[in-house]
Amino acid sequence: MSDPAIRIALVTLGVEDLARASAFYEAMGLKRSRASQATIHFYDMDGVVLGLFPNDLLAEDAGVAADGHGFRRQTLAWNVSDAATVDSAFARVLAAGAVSLKPPYKTSWGGYVGHFADPDGHLWEVAHNPFFPLHPNGAVSVPPPREGVKK
Amino acid sequence: MSDPAIRIALVTLGVEDLARASAFYEAMGLKRSRASQATIHFYDMDGVVLGLFPNDLLAEDAGVAADGHGFRRQTLAWNVSDAATVDSAFARVLAAGAVSLKPPYKTSWGGYVGHFADPDGHLWEVAHNPFFPLHPNGAVSVPPPREGVKK
Repeated sequence: MSDPAIRIALVTLGVEDLARASAFYEAMGLKRSRASQATIHFYDMDGVVLGLFPNDLLAEDAGVAADGHGFRRQTLAWNVSDAATVDSAFARVLAAGAVSLKPPYKTSWGGYVGHFADPDGHLWEVAHNPFFPLHPNGAVSVPPPREGVKK
Repeated sequence: MSDPAIRIALVTLGVEDLARASAFYEAMGLKRSRASQATIHFYDMDGVVLGLFPNDLLAEDAGVAADGHGFRRQTLAWNVSDAATVDSAFARVLAAGAVSLKPPYKTSWGGYVGHFADPDGHLWEVAHNPFFPLHPNGAVSVPPPREGVKK
């Protein structure tokens, strides 16, 4: 037993139609884990696991009412290596059934980002951020705290 | 340029009060990256980066209206090494200001899980899942697809 820092191990998205949602993410290159079951599908994304689970079951699990609409107060970011890959990734998500919210554009902070919604309305951005280098596995990391820096 | 699989590099949560949200996650052991700015805070979680960003700015970024209420159709899962750590982690999140939705209980599938909401209502579970072993860094992975298995 220890006191580990909080972390995100899985992100489970509530979906209306599991087959439709799975088709979208699988068209984008994810492979369904053999741990998947009839009502829940898992995808290893090398750092975090994606779960797809029917809305009503997800709400029941959390002990909340399944009602909800509008902005979900979250964006998932998929960072890629360069602007050209943002463009090609954005084209791929649209071809796979996503809705374009903002086609890729140069941001005020020096990045290049496109915003889309998946078939269930979950918000995503595909981004090139020159200040957040990618690890070989595609994950990003951000710099540590300033602790110890005196200026 | 390549055709990488979609992945989650950052999870950015919309918050009402950035100071309140940061205080919660920092009380849970996260260290604020020096890449953080006045209106956005970043936390490296070794596999995925957490962002905290005001609701209205997050909606504007995505090009959607900031209105929304009710169930957000998502749960973030924090997997830990054993049931005792679920209990202690659950006590820690409540002490840090989370709302208990379901205190830790034995699930039908053999896990041990507690559900809570962060100060902005984002849903989380802290879980011990004996079927998803933890990597040394705390990430989980799920088994690969059945491809090649003939039975």
